[in-house]
Amino acid sequence: MITTLPAALDRARLLVAPALREAVANLAPEVRLPAEYALGWVDRDGRPVEAGSGKHVRAALALVSARAAGVDEAVGLPGAVAMEIVHNFSLLHDDVIDNDRERRHRATVWAAFGVGHAITTGDALAILAMQVILDQGGPYAREAASLLTASTARMIAGETADIEFETRDDVTLDDALEMSAGKTAALLDCAASLGAVLAGADSDLVAALGRYGYHLGLSFQAVDDLLGIWGRPEVTGKPVWSDLRQQKKTIPIVAALEAANGQADTLRGLLADSRSSEASAARAAELIEGCGGREVTEQLANEHLATALAALDGADLDPGVAAELDEIARFVVERQQ
Amino acid sequence: MITTLPAALDRARLLVAPALREAVANLAPEVRLPAEYALGWVDRDGRPVEAGSGKHVRAALALVSARAAGVDEAVGLPGAVAMEIVHNFSLLHDDVIDNDRERRHRATVWAAFGVGHAITTGDALAILAMQVILDQGGPYAREAASLLTASTARMIAGETADIEFETRDDVTLDDALEMSAGKTAALLDCAASLGAVLAGADSDLVAALGRYGYHLGLSFQAVDDLLGIWGRPEVTGKPVWSDLRQQKKTIPIVAALEAANGQADTLRGLLADSRSSEASAARAAELIEGCGGREVTEQLANEHLATALAALDGADLDPGVAAELDEIARFVVERQQ
Repeated sequence: MITTLPAALDRARLLVAPALREAVANLAPEVRLPAEYALGWVDRDGRPVEAGSGKHVRAALALVSARAAGVDEAVGLPGAVAMEIVHNFSLLHDDVIDNDRERRHRATVWAAFGVGHAITTGDALAILAMQVILDQGGPYAREAASLLTASTARMIAGETADIEFETRDDVTLDDALEMSAGKTAALLDCAASLGAVLAGADSDLVAALGRYGYHLGLSFQAVDDLLGIWGRPEVTGKPVWSDLRQQKKTIPIVAALEAANGQADTLRGLLADSRSSEASAARAAELIEGCGGREVTEQLANEHLATALAALDGADLDPGVAAELDEIARFVVERQQ
Repeated sequence: MITTLPAALDRARLLVAPALREAVANLAPEVRLPAEYALGWVDRDGRPVEAGSGKHVRAALALVSARAAGVDEAVGLPGAVAMEIVHNFSLLHDDVIDNDRERRHRATVWAAFGVGHAITTGDALAILAMQVILDQGGPYAREAASLLTASTARMIAGETADIEFETRDDVTLDDALEMSAGKTAALLDCAASLGAVLAGADSDLVAALGRYGYHLGLSFQAVDDLLGIWGRPEVTGKPVWSDLRQQKKTIPIVAALEAANGQADTLRGLLADSRSSEASAARAAELIEGCGGREVTEQLANEHLATALAALDGADLDPGVAAELDEIARFVVERQQ
């Protein structure tokens, strides 16, 4: 399928880029280079490049969130910048934890600069996100910072569960969904409501936007899990079968294990062998699909998309804003990468 | 020399302990165990123990800082709790970065729980510190959170410089002092002024307390650097010669290299060999002392102690508060561990 980039994402990139550069310029010189590298602005020697820097989904949500509250999207800008920074913080540390050497078709920060620098640069970004909100967030900065810290804490818990699950054999589909709720949905929940919080919106609107973001996040993660098995490396920028090789307990894998019955042990064996064998990973992917893991995950992605969109129904949004949130949601779930 | 524990440190431990436990109870279950382990409350299986958990210098400073502003020290309590949490966050990540297997006579968090858990638990603590301030900091929470984030950012920059210096041969004494200013002084600066900020004190008092904390931090780090070479492992809880073996560019080492003249190459060779040879580390320590590295560092520790105490002179402090800050400062610099 062909998906056009929603205008909100394009606008977010243009609006956020200069503000993000300004924020990152405040980083101490010791961590600025790896941070700018992570953001796709420079190569490892600091020479300007234009590498991919993500799709700015979180930033776009924060901006549209402010508009949902009836104010100019500039009010949501510190939130948009903070979301991009927190997202990149989590990628930096995740890549160290998962030992991933490649992201967005380039060496990851630890692979390029060493583990120590990747850890401290991630730390610096996590702190910078809070600083942006506290210093530029206007009259509702404290509330916004509270939301951001609580959401970041949930994300970190989800990432920790992700690590734990790699060595556990008893992960259920519910566990995997809860992990996704932390790892991904918490931050989209935050992004979709942060702009409204910065605008001082009432709590009903904030809650509706948060629900939209939360279910969109679950949908997003389900799609990500599909791409982690069946995505093409040249599109995803990650090595083939990466989730299988890393013993990840993603939604399709866990769903297949739960449904596999007599074939569960075969699948477990193939997954274990995937660590070192590409052929086993290919066979595991086939078996996961055969056991319905792919279909269940596609279904979950669609269901949570529907729930996300339904959350907006009672929120009395400006039609233009509602259309943009709708468009972003569909784009996220229909993306090929 | 024998040093008695200042009453302020003892009081801080008693006052902060329950508040710290309450804050840590808010952590997600995934990261709570390694966090409680890091704080010395439980063993790696979660069984209660009473392991060392540091001297609570930062917490004590935050509490006395509130009293310096003329309010009850309870006003400084969220600051004291946050300081302890940030300090422990930095230790968790530092131990991963430095590959240190032991701290406070126990396995470090990464050695006990794995690198992934040490990274995410550290992340969770960094965020928790902000949450404590934002949620419990009262009317000046935003200002206090801004101070905490700015100080944490300086600390992270110092830690990054510390890593960088390990592979650099051209580190000057000024570089080493600037690194200490970030790595240690920034957080003591924050601790000593945070209570006053939470109390809404005027900026002159906040600045004077910050200067006291900053120079105390430089003094503290100089002493730490001395202990990193000449401290007894049974007292410091770290392996013998750890700073030498890790190619750290601490103050005594860099001061000795600058003063070594004809012997600089010999010292460089011994330091390089210290990585694998205890005998070379012992000889390096002797040569560092012979070149005046120990004396220069002791002098710096004393000078910054004097500057710290002088910073309080014009601040018109309650004599009891001034006496406590004086006592804490002397304890920090005269400690044997």
